[in-house]
Amino acid sequence: MKKELFNSTKLQQQIEFIIEIDKLKSILRKTKILNSDRRENSAEHSWQLALAAMILSEHCNETINVAHVIKMLLVHDLVEIYAGDVFLYDKPSHDFLFQEEMEAAEKIFSILPKEQNEELLELWKEFDTQETMEARFANSIDRLIPILLNFSSEGNTWKEFSITADQVIDKNEHIKDGSQVLWDLAEQIIQEAINNGYLIKN
Amino acid sequence: MKKELFNSTKLQQQIEFIIEIDKLKSILRKTKILNSDRRENSAEHSWQLALAAMILSEHCNETINVAHVIKMLLVHDLVEIYAGDVFLYDKPSHDFLFQEEMEAAEKIFSILPKEQNEELLELWKEFDTQETMEARFANSIDRLIPILLNFSSEGNTWKEFSITADQVIDKNEHIKDGSQVLWDLAEQIIQEAINNGYLIKN
Repeated sequence: MKKELFNSTKLQQQIEFIIEIDKLKSILRKTKILNSDRRENSAEHSWQLALAAMILSEHCNETINVAHVIKMLLVHDLVEIYAGDVFLYDKPSHDFLFQEEMEAAEKIFSILPKEQNEELLELWKEFDTQETMEARFANSIDRLIPILLNFSSEGNTWKEFSITADQVIDKNEHIKDGSQVLWDLAEQIIQEAINNGYLIKN
Repeated sequence: MKKELFNSTKLQQQIEFIIEIDKLKSILRKTKILNSDRRENSAEHSWQLALAAMILSEHCNETINVAHVIKMLLVHDLVEIYAGDVFLYDKPSHDFLFQEEMEAAEKIFSILPKEQNEELLELWKEFDTQETMEARFANSIDRLIPILLNFSSEGNTWKEFSITADQVIDKNEHIKDGSQVLWDLAEQIIQEAINNGYLIKN
């Protein structure tokens, strides 16, 4: 957009960022939305996580700053605009992925004015490094919701990609690092999914 | 989901709410996402608004509680799951719409445990009644983003529905009640849209 439309460079940078992030609506995940054959995109996924964090925050292992978790979840997938979404069960080593996603993070957040660039890059790094309880709880929510959606659709994506219960447990058990209550629930759901034939045991 | 999966009724209600709101991903708006012929849905729209509010909060007419604005934007469209999305330029009187949306709000939030039911209903009512600065700023963002998307797609939806600049001004000028800076920008964009032939004057 033309520079003349804006009363400051800062506002122009902010608007350009908001336009650029529209691309997250076109990044498709493996999970499907309920009652449809459509794969969900990372923008609507981020919305559901933010709202789920707001609703489930009391189940975090410690008292947390919920607003901070919500902000982290709103930005956590933005790197996918340049780095793409990686299916949980196909993830390469963290180090390999980190390099690519770090470059994507620097690229997308650099559209913003300096202070906000730093603030959002910090939020993204905080989620990625999992060192704070807020980041661990955000991650618990990011892992729990796909389990709920898969279970509610009778194992849709699990069946499509022949995912086993052992894989689901292996890739998701750190839900307990953010919330033991939610991991207990996830374990119940995984067991019920095996019983119902939505998920094969191993 | 079976009651036996949950360690409390409260957790069951919260999870059922999170599953029910998945339906917002299937509520289509008139606006299209950028670089695509796909109409956006209200879930991804809500995500973009929440993030835009976080980025643009300094332009609010007063100092506000940004986290509160974000929460309001995350829930503000949930009523559409039962009441549907109404195109801004087709909106009936507020009183008529309010009745239908109020019933939808009571229905969706009543899935939640009592305290959260009340909390989210209050958030929704706060957005609807526009009496707080947080609600007015949330509304400014809700109105500004579609203008940005329409302008960035060379007037896509404006052209499709033969919307005039006078209509855009009439339906959006209360952006200034939340942010004079953002309304000044919107006016510049509307003028440029007329100049570029994206929007007819009247």
